[in-house]
Amino acid sequence: MQLVGRQHSIFRTPYFNRMLYSVTFFPKNSTVEVEGGTTLLDSAAKAGISLNAVCGGEGKCGKCRVIVEGAVDSPDTALINPLDWENGYRLACQCKVRSDLIVFVPHEAQVGEHKILTTFHVAELSDLSPLVSWRYLDLPLPTLDDNLGDLERIERSLGLTHGELDAPLEVLRKLPDVIRSSNWNVSVVLEGKHNLIDIRPGECLRELGLAVDIGTTTVVAALIDMRTGEVLSQASDYNKQIVCGEDVLSRIAFCEDRSVERPQRLVLDTVNTLISKIQVDIKAREEFNLTGDDISSISVAGNTTMIHLLLGLDPRGIRYDPYVPLTNLPPIMRAGDVGIEILPQAPVYFVPGRASYVGGDIIADVLASELHASQETSLLIDVGTNGEIVLGNRDWMVACSCSAGPAFEGGEVAHGMRAMMGAIDSIQLKEGEIEYTTIGGGKPIGICGSGLIDLIAEMFKNGVVDKKGRIQDLTNPRVRMGDEGSEFVVAWAEETAVDSGRLDFPDGRRGDIIITDNDIHNIILTKAAVYAAASVLLKSVDLAFEDLSQVFVAGGFGNYLDIGKATVIGLLPDLPENKFVFLGNGALAGARLTLLSETKRKEANTIHERMTYFELSTTQAFFDEFSSSLFLPHTDIGKFPTVRKLLERSG
Amino acid sequence: MQLVGRQHSIFRTPYFNRMLYSVTFFPKNSTVEVEGGTTLLDSAAKAGISLNAVCGGEGKCGKCRVIVEGAVDSPDTALINPLDWENGYRLACQCKVRSDLIVFVPHEAQVGEHKILTTFHVAELSDLSPLVSWRYLDLPLPTLDDNLGDLERIERSLGLTHGELDAPLEVLRKLPDVIRSSNWNVSVVLEGKHNLIDIRPGECLRELGLAVDIGTTTVVAALIDMRTGEVLSQASDYNKQIVCGEDVLSRIAFCEDRSVERPQRLVLDTVNTLISKIQVDIKAREEFNLTGDDISSISVAGNTTMIHLLLGLDPRGIRYDPYVPLTNLPPIMRAGDVGIEILPQAPVYFVPGRASYVGGDIIADVLASELHASQETSLLIDVGTNGEIVLGNRDWMVACSCSAGPAFEGGEVAHGMRAMMGAIDSIQLKEGEIEYTTIGGGKPIGICGSGLIDLIAEMFKNGVVDKKGRIQDLTNPRVRMGDEGSEFVVAWAEETAVDSGRLDFPDGRRGDIIITDNDIHNIILTKAAVYAAASVLLKSVDLAFEDLSQVFVAGGFGNYLDIGKATVIGLLPDLPENKFVFLGNGALAGARLTLLSETKRKEANTIHERMTYFELSTTQAFFDEFSSSLFLPHTDIGKFPTVRKLLERSG
Repeated sequence: MQLVGRQHSIFRTPYFNRMLYSVTFFPKNSTVEVEGGTTLLDSAAKAGISLNAVCGGEGKCGKCRVIVEGAVDSPDTALINPLDWENGYRLACQCKVRSDLIVFVPHEAQVGEHKILTTFHVAELSDLSPLVSWRYLDLPLPTLDDNLGDLERIERSLGLTHGELDAPLEVLRKLPDVIRSSNWNVSVVLEGKHNLIDIRPGECLRELGLAVDIGTTTVVAALIDMRTGEVLSQASDYNKQIVCGEDVLSRIAFCEDRSVERPQRLVLDTVNTLISKIQVDIKAREEFNLTGDDISSISVAGNTTMIHLLLGLDPRGIRYDPYVPLTNLPPIMRAGDVGIEILPQAPVYFVPGRASYVGGDIIADVLASELHASQETSLLIDVGTNGEIVLGNRDWMVACSCSAGPAFEGGEVAHGMRAMMGAIDSIQLKEGEIEYTTIGGGKPIGICGSGLIDLIAEMFKNGVVDKKGRIQDLTNPRVRMGDEGSEFVVAWAEETAVDSGRLDFPDGRRGDIIITDNDIHNIILTKAAVYAAASVLLKSVDLAFEDLSQVFVAGGFGNYLDIGKATVIGLLPDLPENKFVFLGNGALAGARLTLLSETKRKEANTIHERMTYFELSTTQAFFDEFSSSLFLPHTDIGKFPTVRKLLERSG
Repeated sequence: MQLVGRQHSIFRTPYFNRMLYSVTFFPKNSTVEVEGGTTLLDSAAKAGISLNAVCGGEGKCGKCRVIVEGAVDSPDTALINPLDWENGYRLACQCKVRSDLIVFVPHEAQVGEHKILTTFHVAELSDLSPLVSWRYLDLPLPTLDDNLGDLERIERSLGLTHGELDAPLEVLRKLPDVIRSSNWNVSVVLEGKHNLIDIRPGECLRELGLAVDIGTTTVVAALIDMRTGEVLSQASDYNKQIVCGEDVLSRIAFCEDRSVERPQRLVLDTVNTLISKIQVDIKAREEFNLTGDDISSISVAGNTTMIHLLLGLDPRGIRYDPYVPLTNLPPIMRAGDVGIEILPQAPVYFVPGRASYVGGDIIADVLASELHASQETSLLIDVGTNGEIVLGNRDWMVACSCSAGPAFEGGEVAHGMRAMMGAIDSIQLKEGEIEYTTIGGGKPIGICGSGLIDLIAEMFKNGVVDKKGRIQDLTNPRVRMGDEGSEFVVAWAEETAVDSGRLDFPDGRRGDIIITDNDIHNIILTKAAVYAAASVLLKSVDLAFEDLSQVFVAGGFGNYLDIGKATVIGLLPDLPENKFVFLGNGALAGARLTLLSETKRKEANTIHERMTYFELSTTQAFFDEFSSSLFLPHTDIGKFPTVRKLLERSG
């Protein structure tokens, strides 16, 4: 199932025979071809990306910093420190293309909005039992008769026996000063009962923790008030590691070819940038002055590869049969050791994973959905770069993974893009005319996952494509023959955003936003994999979709999904809409729950133990079901009675 | 009681009125006065210390590296790396005196023997339960059906539950390679049951640990076979920290004036040099090739100040009323965090201390003596730079500390020196003639502690000094008037070692080895403090010396001590000789016991809890007893019946 390597939608430029290189910009996932020697600033403009260049591209302002993978000519500059330079940071205005490139445009380098839309369910928690606890101590002053050491004095005030209290060197080193400068009134931060991880003068007003979802594509962090569970601030960004490959397998390949260090540094850079953003946000709201050291615990949910790369662990075992990771249950670590810029001694908890391709993000989804606590059997589908499916109830669970492919995230589709400003996110065909909405409401620059599902469902319902997904209504004024077969125009060039700057033609003309036969084929591959995986999982326990109590849909993609249309194309099963529940970012929700509650951490371990992993790559039934699913909605229309009725009505 | 500051025996040079500076060389504790601009190589020669200078003092061979505290003129040299330079390392041949200096001569810089004589009792242990344990694992190969992560696979082989096994990042990072390169046969090192601190290919042939005694003056390390408890190798050296002050109070003052970092680095340098020496020793014996990483646990005994300085902890609380240390029970730490060059994840255990001036070295003494396990009441005396006394049995213990002063270690005595090669270590006066032995058997260069005790006892018995310690037999041919009062010639200049080079006179003449009224006074102060402390401790529990079952004598000094003569001068109580037991280096013995045995670690904690600390500095009874003890052997000769008989006989 797992294929290595990236496929880029290459804009062919057949008119000239010069030295041309393809440059793909992330996170927009937009590829352009440019001549050798073109600056990245100009290449980005050609891809419709306006970079910050306050100094007019003279290499003086340092605003156009991008991360580059591939060979470029770039002069040294004092505006980029040596570590960032090693990580691939370059000034786009000074950097000239001399090979095929992958370029990541950080949020701060880009003009205009670039927001990842992410929501998650904030569950109520009866049990607040965080990883660390705070205690205020009014220590008795030492005397000749009561001359306990400082540490033993704290130990006694905590009601512990001599020698029970652990404390790392960093804390011991600052302890005497803190105690004496605060006149023996201190707050201590304890991990468990016995580990003193911080000491601060006076009473502690705020107890803060961080929940983090590290996705292959996006990273989201939420600052949590540990006394109430409230989310105080949230920040998200694309994973800078994307320059090392779009999916987990190409990231692992990168580590094999090079080393794990660069991906590790890039994801740490991403996480630490989010922490800075949260600090800025809290400051902007004038609530209080937040320093990294104020955050004294962190819970991380991520897929198995992401966790390996975050920790700089060898991920090779994940890629090859029998797909063995180094660990599914990383022990608790110190933030300082990991490189996360919060309190160095803060414990870093990782939501346990189940297998190489069913990671902690999925167990976090399960926790957030409470699938594991219900008497009724439910299904959970998380479609990201990979697709993961969990089936079960409080007594048993089975899970599997399929490589869904990047079609719903803008990959392998000519005008696909991620769910960002300017993306077409919903589409209707009405009496031959097209109606669409865009994220942010402006002019379109591409189509995101939910838009693509709508588009194909509408084209299918309206007879523009046949059940094999081939464009068949050649009389439709929006259908035409392109370089690679039939294509359908979603938005004419003149409708598209001027600042999209999508220069499809060497003479400088912008092009139309289209979808091609090939694009549709790629989307069908994706939806077929997800549906087939869910079907096989059900069959493995002798159940059918009708037996399900609920279907949870997780992943950033789930926020905009039209269930009805996802059913029409056969991505989701044909069930009453009230059976579907959107989890939003379940990984982040699960990270928050485990950050706050010992009960939830225990439940996460129980899920890990109880879940049976089902390896699809060796299952003939999966390939059979996959083949049957390569149709709209399915070879067996009997499985989609509602869609059949709909087609009968529209037909 | 505690006085800050160093007193050096200054060789006055009244003949000239030039810019003269005093330079004290450690560990020999020899002070010379030299003109500004003199090199340290020449200054050392004047103090009778032959430094390695293979290149003839041209600054090329780098053999004459010494550690300097004070202002010198010294050119930069590539032969000393920046960190060593910061620690005060300089080339003696290139370095010119321009202030009063303290210079530490490392073992390797000195020509000839320089050995610290140290022995310790190797107790049999029925219970071997080290800090870490080794396990050999033949791991089953992973398959698609058994695809546990590497860490979980180890966990299962150890019989642990999922998620129970902790492992630090360093170990996780090397784990996949070690497992696969050894075809799934590995040895793991576990701290407790759940912490994986190392993994190595194949079967582990050796399980090694290190016991270390960190004294104010000397540091001793012993490599221990953790399967048998056997001592495989041992190394000792002077504590390089000595350039920061001779006793704990001057070291603390150094930290207050400057910072804790330099003393910390110097003691780490000392410990790490001992580890290298042990490696060389093991290699020389062609037993096996020992790397630092082979040593996977360490137990450290040291006084409270030494432990603070080793860890870089603020020691100020120790110096001032109410004498509160940061901790008497440092938690277990990682060798890598502390800076000790063994396996970085190796646990560092510290024998707990009781108070600022009764440290882990004394609890280690108690462990080695088994005083704490006996029904009978015993006394333990440890005389080093400080004197510590413990009294008790298995039901109770009291302890106190007195600042004994450095007289027995060569300080505050004109021709005093430490117990090194060339030191006079025993003396007899027979019919007006003197007989002495030296360590190593060669010509004398000074007098060490046991020699000084013998000397004063003999002078007293023979009527050369009166009971106040004043030289009274002015007709004795060895008695004469010196610059500072009466003095007694122990060895004439022509008897002394030529290479001692002791140039007492500006015209280049070597002098005689003498003892002065003032020297004797300093020794009496020391012996009085120790005896008075022991007396007051006994009185505090209504006991007398006669009630004691045993008297344990610990400290390097104890190895050569003549009990009878120590009784004659009133240092030790007048008891039958069979009641005295030499512990040798009890601190090292206790460190070894706690390294090897969980039972002993628990006993150490019990001793810590059960021991009552008695603060002498606020006790009038101590000052009264101290005053009464400022005589030979004591104001009340009735306390020393054997000595009275002896004097009656000789009188």
